[in-house]
Amino acid sequence: MVKTPFVTKEQLDEIVKTYPTPFHLYDEKGIRQTARDLKEAFSWNEGFREYFAVKATPTPAILKILKEEGCGVDCSSLTELIMSERCGFADGDSIMFSSNETPEEEFILADKLGAYINLDDITHIDFLKEACGIPERICCRYNPGGFFNLGTDIMDNPGDAKYGMTKAQMFEAFKRLKKEGVKEFGIHSFLASNTVSNEYYPVLASILFNLAVELHENLDVHIDFINLSGGVGIPYRPDQEPNDIFAIGKGVQEAYEKILVPAGMGDVKLKTELGRFMTGPHGHLVVKAIHEKHIYKEYIGVDACAVNLMRPAMYGAYHHITVMGKENAPCDHVYDVVGSLCENNDKFAIDRKLPKIDIGDLLVIHDTGAHGFAMGYNYNGKLKSAELLLQEDGGCRMIRRPETVEDYFATVEGFDF
Amino acid sequence: MVKTPFVTKEQLDEIVKTYPTPFHLYDEKGIRQTARDLKEAFSWNEGFREYFAVKATPTPAILKILKEEGCGVDCSSLTELIMSERCGFADGDSIMFSSNETPEEEFILADKLGAYINLDDITHIDFLKEACGIPERICCRYNPGGFFNLGTDIMDNPGDAKYGMTKAQMFEAFKRLKKEGVKEFGIHSFLASNTVSNEYYPVLASILFNLAVELHENLDVHIDFINLSGGVGIPYRPDQEPNDIFAIGKGVQEAYEKILVPAGMGDVKLKTELGRFMTGPHGHLVVKAIHEKHIYKEYIGVDACAVNLMRPAMYGAYHHITVMGKENAPCDHVYDVVGSLCENNDKFAIDRKLPKIDIGDLLVIHDTGAHGFAMGYNYNGKLKSAELLLQEDGGCRMIRRPETVEDYFATVEGFDF
Repeated sequence: MVKTPFVTKEQLDEIVKTYPTPFHLYDEKGIRQTARDLKEAFSWNEGFREYFAVKATPTPAILKILKEEGCGVDCSSLTELIMSERCGFADGDSIMFSSNETPEEEFILADKLGAYINLDDITHIDFLKEACGIPERICCRYNPGGFFNLGTDIMDNPGDAKYGMTKAQMFEAFKRLKKEGVKEFGIHSFLASNTVSNEYYPVLASILFNLAVELHENLDVHIDFINLSGGVGIPYRPDQEPNDIFAIGKGVQEAYEKILVPAGMGDVKLKTELGRFMTGPHGHLVVKAIHEKHIYKEYIGVDACAVNLMRPAMYGAYHHITVMGKENAPCDHVYDVVGSLCENNDKFAIDRKLPKIDIGDLLVIHDTGAHGFAMGYNYNGKLKSAELLLQEDGGCRMIRRPETVEDYFATVEGFDF
Repeated sequence: MVKTPFVTKEQLDEIVKTYPTPFHLYDEKGIRQTARDLKEAFSWNEGFREYFAVKATPTPAILKILKEEGCGVDCSSLTELIMSERCGFADGDSIMFSSNETPEEEFILADKLGAYINLDDITHIDFLKEACGIPERICCRYNPGGFFNLGTDIMDNPGDAKYGMTKAQMFEAFKRLKKEGVKEFGIHSFLASNTVSNEYYPVLASILFNLAVELHENLDVHIDFINLSGGVGIPYRPDQEPNDIFAIGKGVQEAYEKILVPAGMGDVKLKTELGRFMTGPHGHLVVKAIHEKHIYKEYIGVDACAVNLMRPAMYGAYHHITVMGKENAPCDHVYDVVGSLCENNDKFAIDRKLPKIDIGDLLVIHDTGAHGFAMGYNYNGKLKSAELLLQEDGGCRMIRRPETVEDYFATVEGFDF
C-alpha cells in the first residue's frame, strides 16, 4: 500500500511559515474517522466503549476530540489521571486505570475519580484495601503465561511479561474480592503489541470469554465487562496490509455469540484500550533536511532527532518517510536519515531508498501519532517540539508549544541559575 | 570486584526522611577524586584539560564541582551551551562544542561564547562561514572508517557511524580552513564507547598523533590540540576490572613521546571529553521496593522506572543492585526488578540473584551518575525524580527538585487546563 501523507506540500509550506520545523502534526479528521469506525464495528455490543490509551498521545486537545467521539480514557499513572480529570473524564464511567507496580497515591486518586480499577496482581487486593478500600466494581488482569503464537508473524511471550495474574490467581482473586463485597467484575488481558492481523482480537476475546464463563459458573460472580485492552496495530511499512476494524469487530462478535451468549452472559460489555490504532497513522513528524554528508555512507541530517521520535532508536522501528514534493520521483538514492544526537542510534532511517534530498526539503515521517511525542526525552539537552492540529476545517493550530530552555532549567536547584 | 555503595544504609535512612524515593544521589567526594586523578594522570602534558561531556550529567551543581576541579565542558546543543554559559564556562577556553547535524543558531552561540568549535563534516566549513564566519582556532572530527577492534572485547564500527570526516576530507578541510585564515588546529575522534580497557586511549592517541604529524608536515599547519574525546568507560559489572587512569595516561604519554615529540610537535595540548568515566560510578539511583509479585517468575516492583534510568530498557544494560542492609546476606533469590511503566522492557534487572527483598527495602542501583537522569523521559506521564548531592562534609542537599504535574503540563496549549 502506498503511504500518502494526510497533508499536502502546499499545506505544509503554509504551516511552516507560522510554525518552524520540527513539529508533530495530527489529523483531526482521521482521528475522528477511526474512532467512528471502531464504534461502528462494535455497535452490536450494547455496552461497548473505547478507553483511549493516554500513554500513546498524552495531549489534552487529542483527548478532547476522542471524548467528543464518545471515548473514555485508559490511564496508567497519576499524571494521566490528573490530565484526564482536567479534560472532563471523571464522570464515574470514563476512566480505566490499568497500571502495574502501582504506588498507593495512584489507587487513591483513581478511586476518587470513579475510575474502573484494573488490578495487575493478586497482592494488589490487600494493597488497594489498605489504600482506599475495595470498590464494588473492579477488574483483574489475566496473564495466561506461556507463549502466544498467532500464525507466523505475530507472537509474544506473556510468560515473560510482568503483567497480570495466573489463572489460579484469577480464581482466587475473584473469590476474595467477592467476599470483600465486589458486585461487578471486569477481566482484562494484553497478549501482543501492535498486531497487524484481524485475528488477534477474536483469539484474545475467545480466551477471555471462556475464562469469564468459567469464573461466572464456578464462583457465581457477575462479569460486567471484558476489556480487550490494546494490541491492535497499524502498518508502519508500506508492504503491510492494514487491520480491518470491521472484520475484527465481526470476529469478536462471532466469539461472543458462540461462547458468552449460550452461557447466559449476553449482557457482558466490551471495552477496548486502543492507543496506536486510534492515533498512530494520524500523526506526522515534520522535519527539514539541514545537512548532507558523504563519508562511508550517505547521510541526510534533519532538524529533529530521537528526542522527537524514539522508536527507531529504541526498537529499531521502521517509520516511513515521504520527501514532500518528490512523491513521484524515483527512489534512486540510499540514505541514512539522521538526527543530531551524539548517539549513533539516532537514525530515523538506515539504508533507505529515497528520492534525491536537497537541503531545505521537508520530510514527513509517518505514523508518529502514537508513542511519538509521548516517548520524547531531553537527551543532549534537546528540547521537545510543538504539537500542531490539522483541523477538520483545514486550519492548523498549536496544541502544545515547543519547550524552551527555561522549561528545561525549571527544576534546577541550589544554584543561581 | 565487589561493588559497594558510596553511602551507608544509616545515611540513606536519614536522607529518605527528608527526600522521598526515588532519587539520584551523587557523591561529591568521588567526583572530585576522579577529576584529580585524571588531571594527575595527564599532568605530563602541559596543556592537558578535561572538558566534561555535559550530556552525561547536565546538572549545574555537578558542572560547578568539575569547574572547581579545573575542568571545562563539552557541549553538544544549544541548551548545553546556555547552561555552560550560566555556570561560568564562557571564558574563551572552557567550552568544547562537539556536535553533529548542527543547526545554524548553535554555531552562532558557540562562536559568541568563545567555544572551541569541532566540525563534524567537511560541509560544515561553508555552513559555519555562512552562519558566523570561520574562527582562527578550529577543530575537525576524524572518522577512520572500517572496523575498530581492540582485542577480543572492545570493538566498534566507525565505518557505520554518522560522525566525522574521512582522512581525505581531513586533509581537504585543513587546506581550506588554512586558506580561510585558521591559525590553530585541533583534531578530534571517537572510536568506541565505554571501553573498559587501558589500551583504548593509547591506541586512539597513536592514530590521531600520526594523523597530526601527517597534516602538520604536508600542510604546514599548527596543531594546537588533540582531543581524545570520550570512550574511557566504567565497570558496570562486578566481574569487570576498572580502568586505571594512571596506566592510561602513561600509555598516551608513550605514544606522545614516540610520535609527536620526534616530529617537533611536543607543544601539542591534549584534551579529553570524558563523561561516563568522570561521574558514572559516583551516582546511585535510590529506589524502594513497593510490590512483590509471583506469577511465572518472581518480580519485585520498585517506585522508579525507565523514566529514571533508561539504559536497561534501551540497551539491555546491566546495572548492579545492592539491597541496603542485606549486603552480606546470601543471594539466594532470583528476581526481575521492575518499574511501573506499561512497557515490558521496563526492568532494572532480569533473572538477578539477590538476597530476599522485603517490601520497604531500599535498593541502590549503581553507576547511574552518567547517562542516567540525563536520558530520562516522561513516558506514561511519569515524572522525573530529584537529584541529590552527598556533599564532601557528609551533608546532603537537593540539586534538582522532582518534577511536578504542572511542569509536565507547562507546554499544553489551546485548552483551558
